[in-house]
Amino acid sequence: MTRKIRLGAFLPGGGQHIASWRHPDQPVDGAVSFEFHKQLALTAERGLFDAYFLADGLAVGFGGAREGGNARVAGFEPVTLFAALAPFTTHLGFIATASTTYEEPYNTARKFASLDLISDGRAGWNVVTTTGDATAQNFNRDTQLPHADRYRRAAEHVEVVRKLWDSFEDDAFIRDKETGVFFDPAKLHDADHKGEHFRVKGPLNVSRSRQGHPVIVQAGQSDDGRGLAAATAEVIFTAHQHIETAREFYRDIKNRARGLGRNPDHILIMPGVSPFVGRTEEEAREKYDRLTSLILEEDGVGLLNGLTGGTLDLRGYDLDGPLPPAPPTEGMKSRQALIRQIADENNFSIRQLYQWVASARGHFTIVGTPGQIADTLQEWFENEAADGFNILPPWLPTGLNDFVDLVIPELQRRGLFRTAYEGRTLRENLGLPFPVNRHAGKHAVIQAAE
Amino acid sequence: MTRKIRLGAFLPGGGQHIASWRHPDQPVDGAVSFEFHKQLALTAERGLFDAYFLADGLAVGFGGAREGGNARVAGFEPVTLFAALAPFTTHLGFIATASTTYEEPYNTARKFASLDLISDGRAGWNVVTTTGDATAQNFNRDTQLPHADRYRRAAEHVEVVRKLWDSFEDDAFIRDKETGVFFDPAKLHDADHKGEHFRVKGPLNVSRSRQGHPVIVQAGQSDDGRGLAAATAEVIFTAHQHIETAREFYRDIKNRARGLGRNPDHILIMPGVSPFVGRTEEEAREKYDRLTSLILEEDGVGLLNGLTGGTLDLRGYDLDGPLPPAPPTEGMKSRQALIRQIADENNFSIRQLYQWVASARGHFTIVGTPGQIADTLQEWFENEAADGFNILPPWLPTGLNDFVDLVIPELQRRGLFRTAYEGRTLRENLGLPFPVNRHAGKHAVIQAAE
Repeated sequence: MTRKIRLGAFLPGGGQHIASWRHPDQPVDGAVSFEFHKQLALTAERGLFDAYFLADGLAVGFGGAREGGNARVAGFEPVTLFAALAPFTTHLGFIATASTTYEEPYNTARKFASLDLISDGRAGWNVVTTTGDATAQNFNRDTQLPHADRYRRAAEHVEVVRKLWDSFEDDAFIRDKETGVFFDPAKLHDADHKGEHFRVKGPLNVSRSRQGHPVIVQAGQSDDGRGLAAATAEVIFTAHQHIETAREFYRDIKNRARGLGRNPDHILIMPGVSPFVGRTEEEAREKYDRLTSLILEEDGVGLLNGLTGGTLDLRGYDLDGPLPPAPPTEGMKSRQALIRQIADENNFSIRQLYQWVASARGHFTIVGTPGQIADTLQEWFENEAADGFNILPPWLPTGLNDFVDLVIPELQRRGLFRTAYEGRTLRENLGLPFPVNRHAGKHAVIQAAE
Repeated sequence: MTRKIRLGAFLPGGGQHIASWRHPDQPVDGAVSFEFHKQLALTAERGLFDAYFLADGLAVGFGGAREGGNARVAGFEPVTLFAALAPFTTHLGFIATASTTYEEPYNTARKFASLDLISDGRAGWNVVTTTGDATAQNFNRDTQLPHADRYRRAAEHVEVVRKLWDSFEDDAFIRDKETGVFFDPAKLHDADHKGEHFRVKGPLNVSRSRQGHPVIVQAGQSDDGRGLAAATAEVIFTAHQHIETAREFYRDIKNRARGLGRNPDHILIMPGVSPFVGRTEEEAREKYDRLTSLILEEDGVGLLNGLTGGTLDLRGYDLDGPLPPAPPTEGMKSRQALIRQIADENNFSIRQLYQWVASARGHFTIVGTPGQIADTLQEWFENEAADGFNILPPWLPTGLNDFVDLVIPELQRRGLFRTAYEGRTLRENLGLPFPVNRHAGKHAVIQAAE
């Protein structure tokens, strides 16, 4: 089978670009409109996307803009939203973000397993550690945990969740009305986890789905983040401005995975891409300029501060001057470095910098024709920089419609993208293996040894 | 407006009666079938029920039967399930159970607020403290917290959630594309909660719904439970075998609420009722006997142990002899007392006891014609024993269909039940007031004082 590009779609109802809600095309109440999210899911499925992807935060202020200018200040919790969207679709996957720092593994395992059952095997969990003191203060703390502690807890959290997802073997359920045997207790297993952060006996009271368990997704860029991703992730969401750094990241993750005994083909690397699509270059540039013109100065400045973990208070600086230095952060370390890299490489003023990152917050922005965008995606895909992409349409629904109607057909013509879903589950469509239950087959072995 | 009976429907896909899954009518995989739950929701809405209600547990073993005989051993998490069902209905409410002991208030507030937005104002939260050491062991503990501690934590948890639900005032969102003002920061409020169990700064990143916030439901029967219910609940689910105890409970709760300055009409008392409906008495009795005959002895014995907080290990006892004494429990204190009361009053053997409680686990079981069932409900409703009822159909979908097709029309003929939904939200249909945001109107007052 020829290798195909995998595609995720980031579709927050409040829009991706910081000023998207001000665009005439975008419904101003999109963030809290279930009907709007349903329309986006149906369009993503029409475009044969692998999955609908949503970020998440556990505090107001997520997104970075000036307080009163942030359209993503309030919205749905992603797992409940995806549960509601799943029955209206049949093949689209749903990857929701949830925190390892502020949830208990039993609850995490349970809500994702439930989403996986409701969608009949189309769920994914984007594992995040959740940064920021504002969030910590919603969970009985004054400040966030140090970076390394968050990642140690995250690794253990994922380990517990995976143990819990294997509580029932796939053939545990007998459901024999005649004999009254509903399930085989020998095929129900405790997790019996005792670790540094968690003690969880199990078992989980949700059974496995058609795809075994949800796909595990991560977005860590730091050394801790890469280590966790290489050890546990099946899909990696990553941010790069250049094919060179993307290739370095791709090689590093695949090598780390190989070193841990994993098949590197079972970790899909999907950089984020924010496309402004025009039938001509001029039309694409007009779309970019139009959206850029809607950014208010104070929102742009706030965005840069938000993206650097609250370390860049730019009030009082000349917006047409250079970016000042900033202290280190315990928050989004890698994102902070990326933002500075973009400024340095392009010799951007503060204003130019926020205009550039406003669409995708550090992800790769492409302004061009369907052919030009396909050229770039093809180049990255064929040169070990990407297994696929997470598309972040700058505004909605137009940015998504443009990609589905103009870019997807071009990718299909080139044989780079599917023309129909290959399977029913998210794993099948992503080409990821079914995760065999860790307890499966052990009974036979024990009997044979007796 | 004439006072009407309110009706909730308990519809676990795995069935209510312990042997319901063995009944020929019931789909054997109902507990994990989204389509089956959807059919139940549509039937409940056709019957004009106020709400679909689901219990919940955070450990395998919930339900009480022998391990291999329990059809409710695994299923959906209720908030995700209800999110998925809500878009297929337009008026039915959805009351999901969630634990105050094993969740953080920020997460509780968020998932219910999200369900409330998805359903456009039809969510309810059944507040439980969650009993049992097996559950505690899934959350880093060896044993459950003492009863009184659980209830203190519960009261504070509800308080924090309610503060968080008032984060955004109802008119906080301006969404002016022209000026770029999305919301008014003066109408966004911190919770600033610092208590014995929780420190939560807020605000919540989900806005209020059409009904303000979800309806708060409780089921406490003990003194601690009644205190919490009188202080915070808007609907109370309760278990009684006789109109006398139901009347005592009703008066006590309404008096406690009055004593706390609440309007007693804003707390609806809804005892559980498990109806076996027949066109004739004989047919109803046949339905009861049929289901009873499907109970396996070890499941019946396990059920009694489960219902008494694991204090009644009856293995080795003569099932046709009397119930032995049991030690006190930190778990379901009131349920333990109720089970013993049923045994004593009826002079039941162990076998007769489990047969009787198998359908509704201590709730009131009525076997009779639509007229007889309506007589009982009417008597309770008109004599200050109930404002409505939570119907627990013994098996599904037949038990629900019977109630909707035979009993509801009889209640309607008597003018006791609605013939069309009164409103769009769960609160409107229950006749509960819109909860005014605690911060509303304060700005004007401050300005006037300046």
